[in-house]
Amino acid sequence: MDQALFTANNVWMLVATVLVFVMHLGFSALEAGFVRRKNTVNILFKNAMIIAIGLLTYFICGFNLMYPGMNEGGFFGFAGFGASMPIDNLAAYAEGNFAVYADGGYTYWTDFIFQAMFAATAATIVSGAVAERIKLEAFLLFSTIFVAISYPITGMWKWGAGWLDAAGFYDFAGSTLVHAVGGSAALAAVIILGPRLGKYQSNGSIKPIPGHSMPLAAIGVFLLWFGWYGFNGGSVLSADPVGVSLVFVTTSLAAAAGAVAAFITSYSLFKSHDLSMVLNGILGGLVGITAGADVMTPMNAIIIGGIAGVIIPFSVVFFDRIKIDDPVGATSVHLACGIWGTLAVGIFGSKAGLEQLWIQFYGALAVCLFSFAFAFGLMYLLKITIGIRVSEEQEHKGLDVAEHDMNAYTDVAGDKTSYQLSVK
Amino acid sequence: MDQALFTANNVWMLVATVLVFVMHLGFSALEAGFVRRKNTVNILFKNAMIIAIGLLTYFICGFNLMYPGMNEGGFFGFAGFGASMPIDNLAAYAEGNFAVYADGGYTYWTDFIFQAMFAATAATIVSGAVAERIKLEAFLLFSTIFVAISYPITGMWKWGAGWLDAAGFYDFAGSTLVHAVGGSAALAAVIILGPRLGKYQSNGSIKPIPGHSMPLAAIGVFLLWFGWYGFNGGSVLSADPVGVSLVFVTTSLAAAAGAVAAFITSYSLFKSHDLSMVLNGILGGLVGITAGADVMTPMNAIIIGGIAGVIIPFSVVFFDRIKIDDPVGATSVHLACGIWGTLAVGIFGSKAGLEQLWIQFYGALAVCLFSFAFAFGLMYLLKITIGIRVSEEQEHKGLDVAEHDMNAYTDVAGDKTSYQLSVK
Amino acid sequence: MDQALFTANNVWMLVATVLVFVMHLGFSALEAGFVRRKNTVNILFKNAMIIAIGLLTYFICGFNLMYPGMNEGGFFGFAGFGASMPIDNLAAYAEGNFAVYADGGYTYWTDFIFQAMFAATAATIVSGAVAERIKLEAFLLFSTIFVAISYPITGMWKWGAGWLDAAGFYDFAGSTLVHAVGGSAALAAVIILGPRLGKYQSNGSIKPIPGHSMPLAAIGVFLLWFGWYGFNGGSVLSADPVGVSLVFVTTSLAAAAGAVAAFITSYSLFKSHDLSMVLNGILGGLVGITAGADVMTPMNAIIIGGIAGVIIPFSVVFFDRIKIDDPVGATSVHLACGIWGTLAVGIFGSKAGLEQLWIQFYGALAVCLFSFAFAFGLMYLLKITIGIRVSEEQEHKGLDVAEHDMNAYTDVAGDKTSYQLSVK
Repeated sequence: MDQALFTANNVWMLVATVLVFVMHLGFSALEAGFVRRKNTVNILFKNAMIIAIGLLTYFICGFNLMYPGMNEGGFFGFAGFGASMPIDNLAAYAEGNFAVYADGGYTYWTDFIFQAMFAATAATIVSGAVAERIKLEAFLLFSTIFVAISYPITGMWKWGAGWLDAAGFYDFAGSTLVHAVGGSAALAAVIILGPRLGKYQSNGSIKPIPGHSMPLAAIGVFLLWFGWYGFNGGSVLSADPVGVSLVFVTTSLAAAAGAVAAFITSYSLFKSHDLSMVLNGILGGLVGITAGADVMTPMNAIIIGGIAGVIIPFSVVFFDRIKIDDPVGATSVHLACGIWGTLAVGIFGSKAGLEQLWIQFYGALAVCLFSFAFAFGLMYLLKITIGIRVSEEQEHKGLDVAEHDMNAYTDVAGDKTSYQLSVK
Repeated sequence: MDQALFTANNVWMLVATVLVFVMHLGFSALEAGFVRRKNTVNILFKNAMIIAIGLLTYFICGFNLMYPGMNEGGFFGFAGFGASMPIDNLAAYAEGNFAVYADGGYTYWTDFIFQAMFAATAATIVSGAVAERIKLEAFLLFSTIFVAISYPITGMWKWGAGWLDAAGFYDFAGSTLVHAVGGSAALAAVIILGPRLGKYQSNGSIKPIPGHSMPLAAIGVFLLWFGWYGFNGGSVLSADPVGVSLVFVTTSLAAAAGAVAAFITSYSLFKSHDLSMVLNGILGGLVGITAGADVMTPMNAIIIGGIAGVIIPFSVVFFDRIKIDDPVGATSVHLACGIWGTLAVGIFGSKAGLEQLWIQFYGALAVCLFSFAFAFGLMYLLKITIGIRVSEEQEHKGLDVAEHDMNAYTDVAGDKTSYQLSVK
Repeated sequence: MDQALFTANNVWMLVATVLVFVMHLGFSALEAGFVRRKNTVNILFKNAMIIAIGLLTYFICGFNLMYPGMNEGGFFGFAGFGASMPIDNLAAYAEGNFAVYADGGYTYWTDFIFQAMFAATAATIVSGAVAERIKLEAFLLFSTIFVAISYPITGMWKWGAGWLDAAGFYDFAGSTLVHAVGGSAALAAVIILGPRLGKYQSNGSIKPIPGHSMPLAAIGVFLLWFGWYGFNGGSVLSADPVGVSLVFVTTSLAAAAGAVAAFITSYSLFKSHDLSMVLNGILGGLVGITAGADVMTPMNAIIIGGIAGVIIPFSVVFFDRIKIDDPVGATSVHLACGIWGTLAVGIFGSKAGLEQLWIQFYGALAVCLFSFAFAFGLMYLLKITIGIRVSEEQEHKGLDVAEHDMNAYTDVAGDKTSYQLSVK
């Protein structure tokens, strides 16, 4: 490969990295919009900390757990703490020999930072599901350990040349490895944590707890869609023009089909135009196409995204019926549509086939079970040690005041910041 | 062309695509900020659906209406439903023969997705003008048909090598083909729809109906400016360094001049610092430079953008005086400044000349008339069939509750979501 | 250099330009979130005008003051008004001779527009610190003159091959030349302007004046981080894969470490989880790494960002104790962490050394003193001529109504826009 092509590839991978970064703002805005006013500072605080923690832990151990580079077909490997550009890489670059780089497409540091941005998204998915009642410290500890250890281990199974890769499992950009992983952890966490106070009432009725700002939620979804062009487009791992442009088309059409299908389905079910369903339909379509964005035709993408859009309202109702209280619908979007997208690779597109479908099925199952078990055990451990749930009084008062001594908006009486109180 | 240059070109075109995508978030935020609280969910819903509908219809028929590829100098052509990478393209790519690609600059899929993002913007322009009183279904049908049929037909006249292209009409990135098209449709729709209740009172006074959130509006305008670097920069249709960088400069300076000119003009007229005028001045400058961003000097760009900034306040007053009730100023920004920008190509820059000015004039006129007539006829048809306007009661109550059973913010009493009510 | 590599470099520089542009939206949202509701329109208005003014003045004289191209080792130079592509450049490009371009990496126009985006950020830094009590006209005049004259002069000292460059001063992307410059001007302006009414009470207590929207502030910080990938990544001045990817890693890790360190430090000091401290910790980490983002290891970056995160809460308390009323913490983020980052180049990384530390120290000192003196003199001049502070009545009422006849949100009674009032 010549220097110019290498440079163009690397530019694209860095642009994709920046786009994946923006997804953290997307998640922050979406989750903030879908929680109540009184828990807004809290969810913003968590999201700001998660991206920070995710990047640092990925540097400390995640990257070398996920890409141990010595473990073909294995279940676990570790290449040591920290990350540093191999001397070979620099020497090769100096000599104009780019073949030493992964896939010939980008530098070691580009590889690291692109993957690091991915890692943090998995933890962010959990934050929405457990919002409005989890203790801040418990959540931060949970995220740190999950993103540092569990996410890279299952990631290695496929992307780090582990046993699922050897078995032929296909997950282009992470319907399973990122989204279903985050969704499984969210489900486990919600089961242990329990629903918000008053959500499921003793007479069997389900109390609607609407989010406090639809503009914030809509901004979040648009930014997630925006960032997804880096998430999927960057997963080509080069700037290959045919590959990346096809992925742009399939990603766009799946999101669009998800919106339209969720609109029609939710209107049929509820006889109203529910914005949150359309927004989650977009996300469902995006999660659904993620496993096979590079092996589908545009028509395939429309069907896959459309089915994801149909799944969303049914899944939201289902999780509510079994009393899984998920304020933002993270389990429906990331777990349900993540599994759907993974299976779809065996049904549509150039990889379709019964054998592939079977591999997709047990691969997704194995990853979800591991993630669920890890998250369940970890959350349980936190529950019996430091405690994971705020007091009833704190929950009623809202986490912003209870945990942060702040309000998100100052038109609510009694605003202050903790620093300013201390100084006074 | 070698592979590296082709790849660099394609990377730029995909980045530009992503930037144009963000314009949809920009429009959503701008329009949400400029409507009343009670219609916020409704406008967000429309904007989320329009991008979805726009992408799908462009795939189904729009792309092949706009680029029929067989109709040099014509008025209409159609290359069939759907879109698929020509076999020739893949074969050529495999052989390293990039000459087969349009302008040698990008793949078939890149071409499709970049153009698809453009198409949806035209429909979005309409949504702001008809906000706060149009029926949701009527609007969605209108947008679908307009973006699927009308937009690509007039687009073909110039960009699809049709009769205006043959005549020498110049519209670099769409002052006419996108902005004046959307603005003409908006004008037609508003004429049929009528003003919001109470806007123009029986005693002749005009009631101010301010938007509910200036931060949302400002975020929207900044994101539109951001996306415009892809809209204009991508219209170079390659990553040509001299071309794209000049377009960046002219686009930036025109927006800046629009802001300053609108500030001075509106201060002179109204003796106050009106934020909405400055925001629309920025957009006016951007629309104004769009037709000739690649053929102007920086000084030309400042003059063109500055004149657009002067046009904005006068145009807003003018449309209000003739009782065209346009809550976001879409007709002023997109129609008035779109026509101005198209004419400016005949007055400034390397294409200037009397003959060119004449072509610019009748080209813009023809496109606007077609778009206006199409939109007028379509909206009239919808009016006499399904009806286009909500009831007075619904308009008073607000479309969020009337059409969506939701409120945009939960500090307003009585919030619920339709899904959650159904479950309960 | 061949055409493909030149094109790839130029694409990256333009993408970086777009990212730096987004920082203006980031500043707007951050500052809007940190001021009171009643001053929201005002701060949005200022930020929209600053980017416009910054771009125009940089075209008129800033660019040629900063890069006089004839003044090696000097203190001042000027290459004339306006900016236009040298004929040599175009001829060289036509011949495929890219060596004539600055660093061989991008066109003249790319150079101009990237630098122009930088220039406007320095003025934006000031707007947050003087928010809620400065007169609009005074602020606009101040910004215009500061960004047109003072910023480019100190910028030339290093980046325009002036005396600090000759002395070996190192400031990769502007910890001093952008951030400390803006912070110094902010400090000078605040000293002359005085604190907001009621902030420092006669009994010695400090009244907390919390910002009105934490979601806006959080969106602002995420967007600033997003844009910083262009700010630092573009300062490589080419798409050099090793260079840019390392800068991405150091920038990311410094921001992350800043968040974590500010979290721990502020929790230790105030026993609460203060979101504004974490957000400013992120910004502090980013400002801190900016001077040496290309010469640090990832571990260095974590330490530098972490120390910046520790500095933030102490600095905020310090400035409050000495009655410097800075509503958004701009002096702490940009001045304190800007100086820290500049010094850090002498302590960590490949440039470390006592001599370098000394150069870093007096370089930062010289630039800050010049900027402070210029801003102080200019603000004083404005004070004794047109006046810089609104009346007490206007300050109580809020600048939105006093200066703009508007409210930022319409759920507050009495909304109107000046245009609409005039028409009525």
